[in-house]
Amino acid sequence: MASEAVRDQNNRNEGENRDPGFCGKLMNKVVEFPRKLKKLGQDDPRRIVHSLKVGLAVLLVSLLYYFQPLYDGLGATAMWAVLTVVVVFEFSVGATLGRGLNRILATFLAGALGFGVHHLANLSGKTAHPILIGVFVFLLAASVTFLRFFPRLKARYDYGLLIFILTFCLISVSGYRDEEILEMAHKRVSTILIGAFTAVFVCVLICPVWAGDDLHNSVANNIEKLGSFLEGFGDEYFKVAGNAESNKALLQGYSSVLNSKQSEESQANFARWEPRHGKFRYRHPWKHYLKIGTLTRQCAYRIDTLNGYLNSEIQTPLNIQSNKVQELCMKMSSESGKALKELAWALKTMTKPCSAASCHITKSRAAANNLKSLLKTSAALLGSQGIHLLDIVPAITVASLLSDVVSYAEQIEKSIHELSSFSHVQFKSAEPTKALQPCNSSASSTNDNVPHLVITIHKLPSQQEIGSKQGAAN
Amino acid sequence: MASEAVRDQNNRNEGENRDPGFCGKLMNKVVEFPRKLKKLGQDDPRRIVHSLKVGLAVLLVSLLYYFQPLYDGLGATAMWAVLTVVVVFEFSVGATLGRGLNRILATFLAGALGFGVHHLANLSGKTAHPILIGVFVFLLAASVTFLRFFPRLKARYDYGLLIFILTFCLISVSGYRDEEILEMAHKRVSTILIGAFTAVFVCVLICPVWAGDDLHNSVANNIEKLGSFLEGFGDEYFKVAGNAESNKALLQGYSSVLNSKQSEESQANFARWEPRHGKFRYRHPWKHYLKIGTLTRQCAYRIDTLNGYLNSEIQTPLNIQSNKVQELCMKMSSESGKALKELAWALKTMTKPCSAASCHITKSRAAANNLKSLLKTSAALLGSQGIHLLDIVPAITVASLLSDVVSYAEQIEKSIHELSSFSHVQFKSAEPTKALQPCNSSASSTNDNVPHLVITIHKLPSQQEIGSKQGAAN
Repeated sequence: MASEAVRDQNNRNEGENRDPGFCGKLMNKVVEFPRKLKKLGQDDPRRIVHSLKVGLAVLLVSLLYYFQPLYDGLGATAMWAVLTVVVVFEFSVGATLGRGLNRILATFLAGALGFGVHHLANLSGKTAHPILIGVFVFLLAASVTFLRFFPRLKARYDYGLLIFILTFCLISVSGYRDEEILEMAHKRVSTILIGAFTAVFVCVLICPVWAGDDLHNSVANNIEKLGSFLEGFGDEYFKVAGNAESNKALLQGYSSVLNSKQSEESQANFARWEPRHGKFRYRHPWKHYLKIGTLTRQCAYRIDTLNGYLNSEIQTPLNIQSNKVQELCMKMSSESGKALKELAWALKTMTKPCSAASCHITKSRAAANNLKSLLKTSAALLGSQGIHLLDIVPAITVASLLSDVVSYAEQIEKSIHELSSFSHVQFKSAEPTKALQPCNSSASSTNDNVPHLVITIHKLPSQQEIGSKQGAAN
Repeated sequence: MASEAVRDQNNRNEGENRDPGFCGKLMNKVVEFPRKLKKLGQDDPRRIVHSLKVGLAVLLVSLLYYFQPLYDGLGATAMWAVLTVVVVFEFSVGATLGRGLNRILATFLAGALGFGVHHLANLSGKTAHPILIGVFVFLLAASVTFLRFFPRLKARYDYGLLIFILTFCLISVSGYRDEEILEMAHKRVSTILIGAFTAVFVCVLICPVWAGDDLHNSVANNIEKLGSFLEGFGDEYFKVAGNAESNKALLQGYSSVLNSKQSEESQANFARWEPRHGKFRYRHPWKHYLKIGTLTRQCAYRIDTLNGYLNSEIQTPLNIQSNKVQELCMKMSSESGKALKELAWALKTMTKPCSAASCHITKSRAAANNLKSLLKTSAALLGSQGIHLLDIVPAITVASLLSDVVSYAEQIEKSIHELSSFSHVQFKSAEPTKALQPCNSSASSTNDNVPHLVITIHKLPSQQEIGSKQGAAN
């Protein structure tokens, strides 16, 4: 990983040395631009739909100008409606609703407060008026700006606080000149209402993008990415014969998980604004997704460490002892990978984690335990076989990290069980065929070429499955 | 780590069960509010200054309303100036400059385009006018919204693109009603100029907060946090006698490093808007800080894995062999910790990394190499001493992870050397006293109670130091 970073950088430096000049660069950019545009749309076609929706909403609200009856009511302040649509319209419904409600509420409150202050200042006479207004504006702007540093307020009400300062200043300051301040406040509030409602309606009614859906899918996808890495890791690390070509590049999908915290948190904040939709009721426990996300990231840190070992040179001494270590490591890796993929699938489809996941986890835990007992008895063999301890350090480290990963897989399973046990979350029960599948498949699995493993597995699942189901029932 | 997460969650669940009712909760919040406010200000007093600055800037710009000569020129559009100040004023100079320039530039361009479109529509006759304007508004709003999805545009010009849509719609749509569109465009541009300049001047002239300084310090602090962890890790993990009380809580400082990517990236984007200030010239290689930050985070992932082992039970068998492993691990940990702290200090003060850092890195590398040779010879001993391989698995894993950490420390050192070698970056040379210090201190260090280590160290530094300096010269 690290050596790759250095290599990347060297490549980049080489690229800089072959400088094609300003015109060449510009030409490259112009040529590449349509290709990039196309890719941007292909990566997520909802972006194109969103752009068209924004265009439509702006068009709708600009009708206020074109129809005489509408224009007569609002006059030039109709531009506030256009402004509101452009500023409030966000990609997801949650973000749009959040901004819209923030804007409406803050405008209401600040308008009322501004009007009160204006009235108070009016009573104090012509000279004191601007001074009083000035003092109020200064104090309010300073204190509300300070409030914006509160992490919890910043997360959900930052935009509202900004609009609060804005509207208060506009109403109270312009009141000094404009005697029709009440009418101005009224028009501002009504145009902002029109703008916000237009934005929200277009956003919700035409192909809505729900932040909750995005959060749900991204947490599930992240778990799946870790699963994919683990499924491929064993083969790649121990360079299984017949698998000469390297799949390292294919394994790098997990790296986006490492820095997913902020996007998950903002999606959770947006999702809390959203009404009931699809599989999710209002007050769906979005916060619990953040817990699953945190576990996923901690697992991803271990996986990043594991990934570092893909690039180091290994000298696995070819003897029976280390062959067993290798087999058990591969078992741990692939089984925990399969378990994570099953869990991701269960979360994505909101199906109660079926016994397939538990079965894979049990198998990986059994492999970890077998490795432990193997290591307990192998010290004496090492010396007699002439193997240096140093030779097996990478394998032992990898095994130890994989054992950590297995623990995290268990925790993720528990956490998903917890989510499914919330009272207002509806997880389907697993289909009977799906539930039966794992144990059959494990018996016929081609991977199970270590006899003593199979024996252990057939003992364990039923006990541990019961335990995990009891845990879920709690 | 993981078990702590579970414990935390249980505590939280218990807290939820002892529900104090809505009124009790509200009272708690009201009582805690002033304490939280105070803490917010104490954590970073610049927040208080920033809030006062915003108040001042709004006050200054509201003078436009109070002085007759100023008001005569601008009229009611003076409120655009107030609006601009509130919206543009950000915490750091870079962010404020970025928003201000985005707003000014976008308003200019969109104003010109809007005027052109209005003129074009005027030529097409009374009926076609609104249709043509509508088509243009739809197309422009949709296409610019799509452009906002470009990651590179989003990072630096997102606000500008938003204002572009806004101004274009305002000018072209309101042109349908308002015949004095040129005057309106002119007033909007000039009030926005006034607002943006007021915001920027107040932001730069009164206790400026530079995003570049923040990025510089946060990257250095992150390296220091990792150093602090590593310095304390050895003692904590091997529970050195006489150090019975646990410092685990003190070691958790590193965890903020794990999720530092996004804040560093946005600071780097802001910093690029900033002019020369303090130690930094214009075009300081801010991107290079992101590289150092990436290495720091990768090192932090290993440290998070190490931290997991603090909570696991260790059974270190007490014999000479494992005592040596323990000593070497502690050496690796503390020396790489010291090296990272020296590097953080060098980066923070912009002093060329002195030989103290290289010396510590060399020592930690020497300890890693000694451990390797120790492990090479110890397989035979293990069996004869009746130690299970399993007993030393945690110690070996920790040693292996620490060896990774040492590599990252080396890479971070190299990366800081690279930064200091950029042509327009001015790193001071290390003070001679500082440069001489390490090797003296290492000789008298109380930690060096393993004779064969000291011998190795005195051999290596000179060779490797030359190597690292050559690397820096490249």
